[in-house]
Amino acid sequence: MRFTLEYTDGNARACILETGRGVVRTPSFMPVGTIGTVKAMSPDELKEIGAEIILCNTYHLFLRPGHEIVRSLGGIHAFMNWDRPVLTDSGGFQIYSLSALRKIGDDGVHFKSHLDGSMHFLGPREAMAIQQALGSDIAMVLDDCTPYPVSYEHASGSLSRTILWAEQCRELQTEGQALFGIVQGSLFEDLRGKSAEELIKIGFDGYAAGGLSVGEPKEDMHRMISFTAPLLPPEKPRYLMGIGDLGDVLQAVEAGFDMFDCVMPTRNARNGTLFTSQGRISIKREEFRADRSPLDPECECYTCRNFSRGYLRHLFLSKEILSMRLNTIHNLSFYLQFFRNMRESIEKGAFVDFKSRWNPIFQ
Amino acid sequence: MRFTLEYTDGNARACILETGRGVVRTPSFMPVGTIGTVKAMSPDELKEIGAEIILCNTYHLFLRPGHEIVRSLGGIHAFMNWDRPVLTDSGGFQIYSLSALRKIGDDGVHFKSHLDGSMHFLGPREAMAIQQALGSDIAMVLDDCTPYPVSYEHASGSLSRTILWAEQCRELQTEGQALFGIVQGSLFEDLRGKSAEELIKIGFDGYAAGGLSVGEPKEDMHRMISFTAPLLPPEKPRYLMGIGDLGDVLQAVEAGFDMFDCVMPTRNARNGTLFTSQGRISIKREEFRADRSPLDPECECYTCRNFSRGYLRHLFLSKEILSMRLNTIHNLSFYLQFFRNMRESIEKGAFVDFKSRWNPIFQ
Repeated sequence: MRFTLEYTDGNARACILETGRGVVRTPSFMPVGTIGTVKAMSPDELKEIGAEIILCNTYHLFLRPGHEIVRSLGGIHAFMNWDRPVLTDSGGFQIYSLSALRKIGDDGVHFKSHLDGSMHFLGPREAMAIQQALGSDIAMVLDDCTPYPVSYEHASGSLSRTILWAEQCRELQTEGQALFGIVQGSLFEDLRGKSAEELIKIGFDGYAAGGLSVGEPKEDMHRMISFTAPLLPPEKPRYLMGIGDLGDVLQAVEAGFDMFDCVMPTRNARNGTLFTSQGRISIKREEFRADRSPLDPECECYTCRNFSRGYLRHLFLSKEILSMRLNTIHNLSFYLQFFRNMRESIEKGAFVDFKSRWNPIFQ
Repeated sequence: MRFTLEYTDGNARACILETGRGVVRTPSFMPVGTIGTVKAMSPDELKEIGAEIILCNTYHLFLRPGHEIVRSLGGIHAFMNWDRPVLTDSGGFQIYSLSALRKIGDDGVHFKSHLDGSMHFLGPREAMAIQQALGSDIAMVLDDCTPYPVSYEHASGSLSRTILWAEQCRELQTEGQALFGIVQGSLFEDLRGKSAEELIKIGFDGYAAGGLSVGEPKEDMHRMISFTAPLLPPEKPRYLMGIGDLGDVLQAVEAGFDMFDCVMPTRNARNGTLFTSQGRISIKREEFRADRSPLDPECECYTCRNFSRGYLRHLFLSKEILSMRLNTIHNLSFYLQFFRNMRESIEKGAFVDFKSRWNPIFQ
């Protein structure tokens, strides 16, 4: 994997991430393909709207269909017919957020499947073995996510474990798969600092910030984003995990983050909330009943080129599958176009203008 | 609308139906686009798999979003972004099958919406006005469907009403929209005969057989199919309504029917039952778990070109939207290819061979 910094504008960066499966231009948004499909989308449609990389969830694929099944079906790329880069998370966050019962020790986590209640174990060794079986282009270290709020003692103990696991994952890294470390430390700046320092000592292909957007106030989140970015080596990609609210993204890009993932555009699409150049709209609103205009006249996606707001409203109220499809195509197109425009603004040294144009709309 | 008989093979026919919106080669299968979308499909995908005409349901569109909304959004073609022919049924069958409460008189039917329980009225005048507002290429007369079993007296009374309504619909037909009559008469040959005779006297652009596949034994259905087809004018299209089981289709094409519609390929797709050159399969079967082969090696659809049985099984068990999409693409592709191959066999005078090859598989 090669990472090249092309432009900077303040702390905002436009970079190129080159992998064996293609190039990722940053700032980059990764659509979330939880169990091996970005919900409602085909891989061809993802390419058409310009997705350069997607994220898949190790936790979900481990439970169903199982990483060995994915391996025997040719690995994640052949499995889902996606030949561009895939980043897999390590499963740590999903265990934290989805499993009702979990017992964490220094060797890993015993947890209960949210699907059938069966018990499983995930440690650094397992997390790496699973991601290697999936064959993702970028793997993440297993981390111990802390809830919010959390005491300093808890956060500190958890961080020691995260660092220990990061070391173990790094030792198990194999040729051809990049590995990113994850900075934890809750809202404690000294812990975040220590976390970054230890990870840099170990040495990774990229560095992520985790454990944010877990319930803390926005200003705390923004403070930690701005605090953490400069701790991470500028010559490596910086990935802000699970954050995709566009207001937060603007803040994080300004701080120097490069990569993002979030279910927001896809989940909101299925719930009828659509992102437009005028802000968010709810497609079910009565006023769209006989509206012949496109969802967003400034958007050039398949949905906006071919269908009216009136039709989209009708499909949504009728709970049609095509509603979820067309809404998802639009929201992801909007996001990817937003990221491309944001990159262009960095190239031109106009990120401040870009941010001040969009911040009031999506804050 | 122009209808040209190109080839015959026994009573089986290969014809061309020319409309202002494109050509339909028969025998033809019409995917069902109930409320203005063929479930799980985009209009582009329908074109890609070769759909030449689709059916939309007047009853559903009347209740939601309402035909006046469809009109104000440009008519059914602009509404759903489908520029090829559309046939609309009259709503009679859906009132019969979906509405819990209905009161039929000679002027029409009072019925209760299956959506919200509101009361509505549909007579020949309303059925024509709605279909004209939708702007379909082919409209159907309003008919009074009889249940199975039904007494001769009931069937006979119902038929008189159907004939009366057919006359009234014919008087209301407008330029640019074809209108088909519907033969009723349950399983009574003399009533079917009288029905056909009266409709021919009125004179329609095409003739359909209705009231079959409503619970009667297969052999009775097949007997009525074979009995009814030759009663209909050979120089006009013959449409067998709501029947799409491929064994029944073979029987009906042999008898001389040209047009078909059925939710079977789309509904079965969503339930995981897939049509292949080896017969029906259930994609959830354990044996497909790590199966890298395509669903049907003889099929060239998007699904079969790009995804394995193992992946399709995984998507189905995970209840993913992409499962319904890929399964529907496959089943409709299979149907449309089956119909194209059937037409080719008629062109070559080899329909008997075609039927004896496929009948054992889909009977």
